[in-house]
Amino acid sequence: EMHYEVANPRNPSADRFVLSKGHACPILYAAWEEAGLLTHDDVLSLRKVDSDIEGHPTPRLSFIDVATGSLGQGLSCAAGMAYVGKYVDKSAFRVYCLIGDGESAEGSIWEAAAFSSYYKLDNLVAIVDVNRLGQSQATQLGHDVEAYARRFAAFGFHSIVVDGHSVEALLNAYKEARNTKNQPTAIIAKTFKGKDISGVENQDDWHGKPVPVEKADEIRAILKSTKRHNWQIKAPPNDAPDTKLSFGNIHLSSPPSYKLGEKIATRAAYGTALVKLGDSSKRIMGFDGDVKNSTFSEKLLKKYPDQFVECFIAEQNLVGVAIGAGTRDRVVPFCSTFAAFFTRAADQLRMGAISFANVKCVGSHVGVSIGEDGPSQMALEDLGLFRAIPKGVVFYPSDAVSTERAAELAANYHGIVYIRTSRPATAVLYSGDEKFEIGKAKVVRESPNDKVLLVGAGVTLYECLKAQEELAKSGVHAAVVDLFSIKPIDTELLVKQAQRVGGRVVTVEDHYQAGGIGEAVSAALSDTGNVRVRSLFVKDVPRSGPPDVLIDLFGISARHIVDAVKNFH
Amino acid sequence: EMHYEVANPRNPSADRFVLSKGHACPILYAAWEEAGLLTHDDVLSLRKVDSDIEGHPTPRLSFIDVATGSLGQGLSCAAGMAYVGKYVDKSAFRVYCLIGDGESAEGSIWEAAAFSSYYKLDNLVAIVDVNRLGQSQATQLGHDVEAYARRFAAFGFHSIVVDGHSVEALLNAYKEARNTKNQPTAIIAKTFKGKDISGVENQDDWHGKPVPVEKADEIRAILKSTKRHNWQIKAPPNDAPDTKLSFGNIHLSSPPSYKLGEKIATRAAYGTALVKLGDSSKRIMGFDGDVKNSTFSEKLLKKYPDQFVECFIAEQNLVGVAIGAGTRDRVVPFCSTFAAFFTRAADQLRMGAISFANVKCVGSHVGVSIGEDGPSQMALEDLGLFRAIPKGVVFYPSDAVSTERAAELAANYHGIVYIRTSRPATAVLYSGDEKFEIGKAKVVRESPNDKVLLVGAGVTLYECLKAQEELAKSGVHAAVVDLFSIKPIDTELLVKQAQRVGGRVVTVEDHYQAGGIGEAVSAALSDTGNVRVRSLFVKDVPRSGPPDVLIDLFGISARHIVDAVKNFH
Repeated sequence: EMHYEVANPRNPSADRFVLSKGHACPILYAAWEEAGLLTHDDVLSLRKVDSDIEGHPTPRLSFIDVATGSLGQGLSCAAGMAYVGKYVDKSAFRVYCLIGDGESAEGSIWEAAAFSSYYKLDNLVAIVDVNRLGQSQATQLGHDVEAYARRFAAFGFHSIVVDGHSVEALLNAYKEARNTKNQPTAIIAKTFKGKDISGVENQDDWHGKPVPVEKADEIRAILKSTKRHNWQIKAPPNDAPDTKLSFGNIHLSSPPSYKLGEKIATRAAYGTALVKLGDSSKRIMGFDGDVKNSTFSEKLLKKYPDQFVECFIAEQNLVGVAIGAGTRDRVVPFCSTFAAFFTRAADQLRMGAISFANVKCVGSHVGVSIGEDGPSQMALEDLGLFRAIPKGVVFYPSDAVSTERAAELAANYHGIVYIRTSRPATAVLYSGDEKFEIGKAKVVRESPNDKVLLVGAGVTLYECLKAQEELAKSGVHAAVVDLFSIKPIDTELLVKQAQRVGGRVVTVEDHYQAGGIGEAVSAALSDTGNVRVRSLFVKDVPRSGPPDVLIDLFGISARHIVDAVKNFH
Repeated sequence: EMHYEVANPRNPSADRFVLSKGHACPILYAAWEEAGLLTHDDVLSLRKVDSDIEGHPTPRLSFIDVATGSLGQGLSCAAGMAYVGKYVDKSAFRVYCLIGDGESAEGSIWEAAAFSSYYKLDNLVAIVDVNRLGQSQATQLGHDVEAYARRFAAFGFHSIVVDGHSVEALLNAYKEARNTKNQPTAIIAKTFKGKDISGVENQDDWHGKPVPVEKADEIRAILKSTKRHNWQIKAPPNDAPDTKLSFGNIHLSSPPSYKLGEKIATRAAYGTALVKLGDSSKRIMGFDGDVKNSTFSEKLLKKYPDQFVECFIAEQNLVGVAIGAGTRDRVVPFCSTFAAFFTRAADQLRMGAISFANVKCVGSHVGVSIGEDGPSQMALEDLGLFRAIPKGVVFYPSDAVSTERAAELAANYHGIVYIRTSRPATAVLYSGDEKFEIGKAKVVRESPNDKVLLVGAGVTLYECLKAQEELAKSGVHAAVVDLFSIKPIDTELLVKQAQRVGGRVVTVEDHYQAGGIGEAVSAALSDTGNVRVRSLFVKDVPRSGPPDVLIDLFGISARHIVDAVKNFH
C-alpha cells in the first residue's frame, strides 16, 4: 500500500507511518527487515543498550518520525504531517497511523480526529487495531467494532470495519480510503491478540510478555503460512518541493523598531516577530488554540493566512500537530496559547523531547500579573515544565526588542524552544541592534559599589529596577540582571556578578518555586563558595485582582525586593 | 430542577452543579443571588482582590466544588461525583455539568464521556451550550447541534437537542434525563450569545468583553421579560450516609512487616499499603489507568472490588474523576498510573491545586531504572510537576516500610499528595515501627568523621550507600540522607548535616534537573554560607537498556558519586 524509499526513509515525498501504539514496535522492526533496511541481527538487538532498536520507537531510527509509547499521541502527529502534505507541500504522500483500541480512550485521539475532519485530511488513514485487550483487562468497548465505527464517523471520518487478519480486506479498505475525498478514513480492524496461537489467542495476561520458547515452532509455522510473497515496494512520487530550510539563516525581515521606554506587551511583540519571520520564510507556520487574538499570533494569520493553522481549544493536539508538521523539516512550527494551557500538553512535550522535535512554543498570560482572570489562567509552573526538556531552550524576554530576537533565535535553533511572553505592557529596554544569544543574560544596571545582585525576568525585572532605584536612595547599590535565557542559564555571568557584589543574590519571579528562576539560579550558583541566594516567588494559589495589587500581595513587588535586600545580612 | 440547600451548598445529598465553562461564572453568581445565598453587593464585587467572587469559579465559594477555567475539565469531575453518588453513597443526588461548545474540542470531555457511559452514570447530565462562537472565531462545528448529538450518542449518552433559550424545553429535557436509565444524558442546547441584544447577538468579538453601558436598559428589559417567577427550591433527599471520615485518624490495619534487607519494590509495597488503608476505611478508593497490575493498585481491587474504579487509558479523566470523587469529603481517592503519564494530567493537577482538592497520586516506573522499556515510559519530570502544587506534599520513599508510611501519611493529609514509587526491588532499610513524618528526612549513615553529605532517594539512595562504603575504603567518610519528603523538604536537617560535614553536599537523583532533588536541595541550602552543592541527575534523553547499565550510563551510579566526591575540593 505504501510508497517509500527503503534507502531513504525520510524522503519528503514518501508516505508516513506512525505507530501510535508504540509498544507494538517489534513488528515494525520486523517489517523494515522484510523491506530490506534492517538486518536480522539489528532486529535481534531489541532493547539492548547499544542498539537503537529500542523498547518503544524513537527517531534515533531513520524510519521513525516521532517517538511513541505514551499512548494516544500518534494521530495528532500524523494529522500534522497530513496537513503539511495536503496544504503546504501539496504532495501526494499519504499518512497512515496505527492506533490501539485501548489508547483510543485517550482524549487526544478525539482532538486529533476532530481536527482531521475539520481540515478534510483525506490523505490521512487511521487504522484501529481492535484486539479487545488492554494491559490489565478488557477495554471499555471490547470487540464492539461498530461502536468504534460510530465514534469515528461522528467525528467526521469515513469508517470502514474490516477483519484485521485479512490482508485482502485491509488492501480493499486502503483503496476505499484513497477514493474517499474531503474526509479522513478510519479502518476499524477486528483482531485477536496472539491469533491462532493455542492458549494465547484472545486471552488476558499476555500483554508485554514473550510467548514461551516452546511455542516458537508453532508460531513460526503460523507466520509462514500467512506470509505474503507477492508484494513490492512502490516508489514515492518525489513531488514535495525543496524547502530550502536553512537553520541559522532565518532572519526577522527588519530589526526591532521601538523607542526606548515605549510600553509594549511582549506578547504583542511576539506577533510582530512572527510576521517578520513569515516575511523571510514561507516555511514559518503559526498554530494556535483559539486564543490568537490574545497571543497575537493572529498577526501572522492576517498577513499570511496560508501560514497559519487554527487548532481550536485542544492543546494536546495543538502541540502534537505542530510536532508532526515539523518532522522532516518541512516547516518551522510556532505554536501559541496561554502559557498555563501548555501544561495540558505536558506529555506531548515530554514525548517531543524523545522525538528530538523541532517545535517552538510561545506561552502568553503568565503569572499573577495577568490580574483579574484569576489563577486558572495564570501560568506559574511553565518554566519548570519547559526547563525539563533535555536540550530545550527557554527564553523569558522582558521587553519587545528581546522578544523579537528570542523568536528569531528560536526559529534558527533545531529543537524545542519555549518563549514566555507577558500580558502587561512593559518598557522597551534595549535598542533594536542589541545582540541576544542563547544562554546569555544581560546586566541592565551595575556600578562599582554594588553590594547585592538582583535577578529578574519579565515583569519582575521591572520590579528589580524599581527596587534598585529605591535602594540607591538609601545608599545600597544593587546590580540588576535580566536573565533572558532561563535555559541554558548564564552561569558564567551569574557567578561573576555574584562574586563581584560580594555574594548576595536575590531572585524574583512571577512563578512558583519548583523549577523556576530561583531554583535555576540557586543550582547555577550552588557550587560557588561564599554566594548566598534568596528567592522571591509566588508561594500560594493566587486569586483575582489588579495586576499591581497581586504582584505586591504575592510577594514579588519592588517593596518586597527592597525588604529582602535590607534583611539580607 | 435541582435539589439543594441554600444555607448549606455542600450538603452531601444535594445535587451538584459543575460550570465547566468557568468563564461564564458571573451568571452562576447571579443565580446564587437569586437563590438567596449571595447579596447583590457580593455579586458586584466580581474580580476585586478582597472578594471570593473571582474571575473564574473556585471553591473559595461554598457553592463551588471544583475550580474551572481551564476548559474541558468539568465533565471528569462531575463524573467522579456521579460515580460516588451512584455506587458509593447510593444517594439520589444528581450531577449537572454545563459545557461550552468550544471546550468540547478538548479530548478530556470525550475521556469523561466514555467513562460515564461505561459506568452507566444515569445520574449525570451534561448540558452543551452550543452558541457557535469561540474566543477568536467560530467553533469547529458552529451551530451544527446534530453533530454534537451524534458525538455524544456515539460515546454512549442519551442525546437530546433543545432550544437553549426555552426554559420549558430545558425542563422537559431534564425530565427525560431523569427517566433515562443506565446511561448519562447530554442536552445539546442551541443558543445565541448575547441573545436579543441588538448588535451583539451571534456576533464575533464579544468574548470576554462587557457590553457597553448604554445598552444596560435594553438588556435589563430583555432579562425582565424572560425572568421566571414560578420556581422554588427543592430540598435535597438527605440520603447520603454519614461518612465519618476522620483525617489524621486513618491507619494501616497493621504495621509494615518486612525483614531488614529483604528486597521489595516500593510499588509493590504501595499495593499492600492501599489494602491496609482499605481495611481500616471503606472510604479509601483506588483509581487506575489500566496499569493496575504494574502499579499494584490491583491488590485493592482484589480484596475490595467496591473500592476500586478502573479508569482505562485516559489519565486526564483518571485525575479529574478522582478530584471529583474527593469533593465534599465523600471518599479519599488514591489514583495511580506510571509516573510519566501523570504529565498527561498536569493541567488537571494544576487546577486541582486551585480546587484545594484532596487527591493522592501514586506514580510508578520512574527514571532510567525502569530499564528496557525506554524513555517514553520513564518519569524524569514528575518531581518538578508535583512540587509545583502549592501546599502539595511529595514523598519519594526508598523502601517498603517508608512506602507504607507514606501512603498512610497521604491518606491523613487533606490536599494533593504525590508518592513516587520505583520498579526495581530495593532492600528494606527501616524497621516496621520507624516513624515517618511530612517534611522530615532520615540520616541513614553518619559518623563523626564525615567530610561530605550524600543526598538520595529511591534507587539513588542505594547508590549513595554503595558510594559511602566505597569511599570509606579510601578513608573518605560520607553521611547519607534519605530525603523521603521531597516537599516540604527538611531544610533544618539538611543545613545541620551540611554544616556538620564541612559544607560539601552531593545530590543524586533518577530525574532530570528541573524541579528535582538537586534544585530542591540547592534552594534549601542557598542561604547557608559555606555550603556547596553538586548535583548528579539525568542530563539527556535516556534509551532502552538494563536498569543498572542505564543508571551508570546516565551518570547517577555509585561510581559517579565516588568520582564527584573525589573531585569535590
